[in-house]
Amino acid sequence: MADVAVAKERRIIVAIDEGEESMYALTWCLKNVISQNSNDALILLYAKPPRTVYSTLDGTGYLFSSDIMASMDRYSSDMANGVIEKAKKLCRTQSGDVKVEARVGDGDPRDVICDMVEKLGADVLVMGSHGYGWIKRAFLGSVSNHCVQNVKCPVLIVKKPKSTITGSK
Amino acid sequence: MADVAVAKERRIIVAIDEGEESMYALTWCLKNVISQNSNDALILLYAKPPRTVYSTLDGTGYLFSSDIMASMDRYSSDMANGVIEKAKKLCRTQSGDVKVEARVGDGDPRDVICDMVEKLGADVLVMGSHGYGWIKRAFLGSVSNHCVQNVKCPVLIVKKPKSTITGSK
Repeated sequence: MADVAVAKERRIIVAIDEGEESMYALTWCLKNVISQNSNDALILLYAKPPRTVYSTLDGTGYLFSSDIMASMDRYSSDMANGVIEKAKKLCRTQSGDVKVEARVGDGDPRDVICDMVEKLGADVLVMGSHGYGWIKRAFLGSVSNHCVQNVKCPVLIVKKPKSTITGSK
Repeated sequence: MADVAVAKERRIIVAIDEGEESMYALTWCLKNVISQNSNDALILLYAKPPRTVYSTLDGTGYLFSSDIMASMDRYSSDMANGVIEKAKKLCRTQSGDVKVEARVGDGDPRDVICDMVEKLGADVLVMGSHGYGWIKRAFLGSVSNHCVQNVKCPVLIVKKPKSTITGSK
């Protein structure tokens, strides 16, 4: 990190999901972007599917019953918590002193990520090039490509070597 | 920059052209990515149009005469040298001790950039989101998007605030 930037607090948003590639992107960011003993603030951002997405998973065309919806909500929350805990653990082990906070947004990750970057005035957005979990099943198109096109701040796209990707591909 | 990465030499390729956005991307990289007193090596990469592109500028359908082609070659080389000098000056003023080398490739910037990243085993590719000069007139499609899709290393896309872009838009 250039000395001129060390004194300045940078808000670095890392978009995470249940896939391995976003965790690889976080690890790369901690090793290559985050400054030790700096004012960098790391914001872990997870996008949770909105309820409307569940119905697209029901092939019958009928909406799920309320108890199924409730259990899906619980599953979705558990998934979010699990991913965030995994990411926070990575931050502690890789870069113990970095300031970390987690945000969870509901909706299409493309909107959740772009809105949060704008809202927080992020200095950098870090993300994997694939995945964002359920988005691949519920939407078409690349989340990272959409974000590169739409956010104002620099975007760092990190790819995990294909040979070791399992969860995010 | 995380301490764990400082000892390791990183090869950082910055794709430059005559547009302001690539110079902004270089400046951002020098301030936010390059480590002071590190082994980071900065490679400035400029793609020069191949001769075949000139003919697309000739609306008559006839190829230019050899003397016109020669003067276009000189113009192209002068442009490359001018851009590289401007970039090197930025490096000296922003980050005096960083190791800098320049490479010039002939052809479609998409191929020149992706090939050089592969050839040099770059650790990071830094580029603006627009521009790459003549590519906008000779080819369709986004250079940065193509590179994000095709290179294996992390790609940092840096946008210059629109209000101040002139040369690259």
